[in-house]
Amino acid sequence: MKRPDLPTDTDTPEVLSVELAAQTRLFTVETVRVRYSNGAEADLERIPCGRWPGAVMVVPVMPDGSVYLVKEYAVGSECYEIGLPQGMRETGESPEQTANRELKEEIGLGARKLTLLSDLSVASSVLGFRVQVVLAESLYDAKLTGDEPEPLQSFRCNLNALLAGNTDIQITEARSLLALYLAREHLEARKGAFDD
Amino acid sequence: MKRPDLPTDTDTPEVLSVELAAQTRLFTVETVRVRYSNGAEADLERIPCGRWPGAVMVVPVMPDGSVYLVKEYAVGSECYEIGLPQGMRETGESPEQTANRELKEEIGLGARKLTLLSDLSVASSVLGFRVQVVLAESLYDAKLTGDEPEPLQSFRCNLNALLAGNTDIQITEARSLLALYLAREHLEARKGAFDD
Repeated sequence: MKRPDLPTDTDTPEVLSVELAAQTRLFTVETVRVRYSNGAEADLERIPCGRWPGAVMVVPVMPDGSVYLVKEYAVGSECYEIGLPQGMRETGESPEQTANRELKEEIGLGARKLTLLSDLSVASSVLGFRVQVVLAESLYDAKLTGDEPEPLQSFRCNLNALLAGNTDIQITEARSLLALYLAREHLEARKGAFDD
Repeated sequence: MKRPDLPTDTDTPEVLSVELAAQTRLFTVETVRVRYSNGAEADLERIPCGRWPGAVMVVPVMPDGSVYLVKEYAVGSECYEIGLPQGMRETGESPEQTANRELKEEIGLGARKLTLLSDLSVASSVLGFRVQVVLAESLYDAKLTGDEPEPLQSFRCNLNALLAGNTDIQITEARSLLALYLAREHLEARKGAFDD
C-alpha cells in the first residue's frame, strides 16, 4: 500500500480576506479570497457554521438492537423523511447534552448513557457545518416539549435489518445513514471486545 | 418490532409561498411558508439545489480492495481534507458520467465499470442538495485537466483498514465516509452472492 503524505500546515492556502456575501435569518454566506501555495488566488464561497457549534445526530439504541427513528418534515426536499432524532447544539451545550435534550423532545426518552462516536464535517468544500454523532443507551421515559410545529412520529426498527435493507424503511438522508453505520461499527467492536 | 406508519402524502405540509431571501454567486436562500396539517404555519429557510442536480461521490476501488482518495483544500474548514473524488453534476450528465469525469480530472483514471450505489439527501431539513454515490471499478489510466487551482494529491488505501481505523488516515467528511461504508456493504454483498 502506498503511504500518503499526510496533510501538513505548511502548504495550506492562505486566507487573504473574508467578506459577507449574504445574511438571512438562518444563513450567512461568505466570500473567502485564498492564495494557494503555488501563488494562484481564488474567491471561494462558503456557509460558515455561524452561531451553531454543530448539529447532533442521536442514535437511541435498545438492548435488543433496535433503534428509534423519527419522521419529520424536511423543507429541503418538501417531504417527510425518516431519520434519527437530531438538533442544533445550543450555546454552552455539550454534544451529549444536546443529544439528551433532543431525545426527550423528539421521542420522549432520556438516556443514562451517552457516548460521542464522531465529530465530522459535512460538505466542507462549501459548508462550515459540523455534525456530532452520539450513541444513546439505557433509555427511560422523559418527555420534554420541543419547538416542533407538529408532534413527531417515532418508531423502532432493528438496526441490522435497517442497514441490510430488510425493512420497509429507507433512510435516504446522508447524515442519519452514516450515524447508523457508525453506531453499528461501535456496537460490533464493543461486542467483539467482550467476546474476546 | 412495532411497524411504523410510513409517510403518506396526505398530511405533508402545504407550501404556501417561496420567496428569495438571498442570492450569491453559488448559493440561493429561500424562505418557504408552509402550513402543517394541524393548521400551524411557519416560515422555514432552505438552500435549494439551484442549478446543480447533485454532487457525486466516487469510490474508485481496485481488485485488491484498496480505494483511491484525494487531499483537497476545503474552505469550509480552512484546511486540507482527505476524501473521495467528487464533483457537481453538469447539465445533462448522469451520475456515472460525472463520476468518470471527476475520476479522470482528480486522479487521472477512467473506469470501465460504474455502479450507482445510492441517491441521498443531505441535511434535508435545510438543504435541497442531493448526493449520488458511484462505485468505480476496472480502472485505467486516463487524465483529464480539471478546474482545480492546484494539482490534487491522490493515494491508495485499503478500504477495510480505513473503516476499521487501522491506518494513519482519518476520513472526517460525512459524505465521503458514508460513501465508503456503502461501497463496503455493496462489495461484501456481491462477494456473498458469489460465495453462495
